[in-house]
Amino acid sequence: MSRRLSSSSDYAELIDKYDTWMFDCDGVLWQGDNLIEGAVQVLQLLRERKKKVLFVTNNATKSRKSYKKKFDNLGVEAHVDEIYGSAYATAVYISSVLKLPKEKKVYVIGMAGLEEELREEGIPYIGGTDPADITLESFSLEHFDLDPNVAAVVCGLDTTVNYTKLSKAFQYLTRNPGCHFLVTNEDSTYPSGHGLLPGAGAISAPLRYALGKDPTSIGKPAKTMLDCIQAKVHYDPTRTIMVGDRLNTDILFGQAGGVSTLLVLTGITSEKDITGPNASTIVPDFVTSSIGDLRSIDK
Amino acid sequence: MSRRLSSSSDYAELIDKYDTWMFDCDGVLWQGDNLIEGAVQVLQLLRERKKKVLFVTNNATKSRKSYKKKFDNLGVEAHVDEIYGSAYATAVYISSVLKLPKEKKVYVIGMAGLEEELREEGIPYIGGTDPADITLESFSLEHFDLDPNVAAVVCGLDTTVNYTKLSKAFQYLTRNPGCHFLVTNEDSTYPSGHGLLPGAGAISAPLRYALGKDPTSIGKPAKTMLDCIQAKVHYDPTRTIMVGDRLNTDILFGQAGGVSTLLVLTGITSEKDITGPNASTIVPDFVTSSIGDLRSIDK
Repeated sequence: MSRRLSSSSDYAELIDKYDTWMFDCDGVLWQGDNLIEGAVQVLQLLRERKKKVLFVTNNATKSRKSYKKKFDNLGVEAHVDEIYGSAYATAVYISSVLKLPKEKKVYVIGMAGLEEELREEGIPYIGGTDPADITLESFSLEHFDLDPNVAAVVCGLDTTVNYTKLSKAFQYLTRNPGCHFLVTNEDSTYPSGHGLLPGAGAISAPLRYALGKDPTSIGKPAKTMLDCIQAKVHYDPTRTIMVGDRLNTDILFGQAGGVSTLLVLTGITSEKDITGPNASTIVPDFVTSSIGDLRSIDK
Repeated sequence: MSRRLSSSSDYAELIDKYDTWMFDCDGVLWQGDNLIEGAVQVLQLLRERKKKVLFVTNNATKSRKSYKKKFDNLGVEAHVDEIYGSAYATAVYISSVLKLPKEKKVYVIGMAGLEEELREEGIPYIGGTDPADITLESFSLEHFDLDPNVAAVVCGLDTTVNYTKLSKAFQYLTRNPGCHFLVTNEDSTYPSGHGLLPGAGAISAPLRYALGKDPTSIGKPAKTMLDCIQAKVHYDPTRTIMVGDRLNTDILFGQAGGVSTLLVLTGITSEKDITGPNASTIVPDFVTSSIGDLRSIDK
């Protein structure tokens, strides 16, 4: 059973207990473009106490650099090397695990942030934001040249997804022997500032369905994201906590990584998901209504 | 085990045995825009012997009337009342099973043929080929007005599918209480003239994934399509045969309807799918390489 936190002594104890704080962002620090009340003060308070702060996001539409701008715009202190996004982790996975030969390339269903991280890791790609693939014109295989050097298809959230992109990706995955099928993350929805919209998992769903097979997923809850963090940051799992709003990504990710978990109720998960007869089987160590609650130790 | 047909006496016996012949079209009578050799002669031969001929297709991009034009263009005799398409069956299902109150409407992810069948059944709809929804511009809920009268989302093959359509459909399915989720069919792929492309099942996959629930499917192998045929045509199941190229749609459909089944190998299914260690558990009554084989009784 989760422990409910509510008093300032609860929060003081929590802060004492953990040195490394991993934060999901959407639904934890902000909702769309609106900051969660108190989030900035809590991060500041953790930094003042010399805590290590990391931001671990499945959002693959932004590179770490462009994600940093989002922090800046919202007035939240963050440094590029504290940010771990699924686009970055995907690029690192391709370069350090798949190690594609240098003539090989990736076909991208995704946006500029994913492309930017691939470029930074020196991975050639096609598709993505190429205007030729951002089209609702009809697609025919009659005029399609299969590029034999495409050795992986990478799919992230792409709000310009269309039948041409899906059809091309499908050709590579079925006709180029051994072509890898990667997704940045499997979130079924994402919280926009005005409500839920289909997430990255929904964008790759047509390919899963047409292929009848699941991709390798990089973002939370997959261990790949954690491998990526561990390669760069030293932390003691017994003194680390993952803070998130989503049971099947954030909390599962923390548990798989052997760190403690704190659920906040400012995002996807609501009270009914964690209590009563239909409660999830994924049980966080701690629950509080908002990250802003931790301010109470200063009062 | 299936019986392999190869001699002219095999085919003569088959033709004697069945009075009603249900044909899938793509992969059986034609591949894309190319007729299967001998298909026209075999249909002619069946008609001469006073057999009842029906065309049962999951293709929901065309209405029966526009499908009839495809037959005409390929020089294949067919009558509109012999054609059962999943777009038509979907419209009939909405009007005769769902019986939506007259102020209610349907949100369509699909093409002109599906819209035409809805119109013919007097079902109001939005979405579909509306230019406002055929866009790759970014979609925000900030500027979206939820129509409270949308009582069903219908999804078929739509080569103009995009994030706006998926997002709108997702809103109706999550925010309009009791909104029905229908798909014309669940084919994972479809055989274009130049190879396989993602099918209608792939188009609805993002919604399944984002919702975490399966839709009601109308086309083969669902019984709904058969109900639609039975309401219009009288046939004796013991003297009826379904001819198809796809085990998990055509053959399963025939079996569920208690009719005999003939698999042809001119479409999706190949020899390795029906023999050896990885053979499918769906076993047709008869197998022949092509519908054209039945011509041999005339030799």
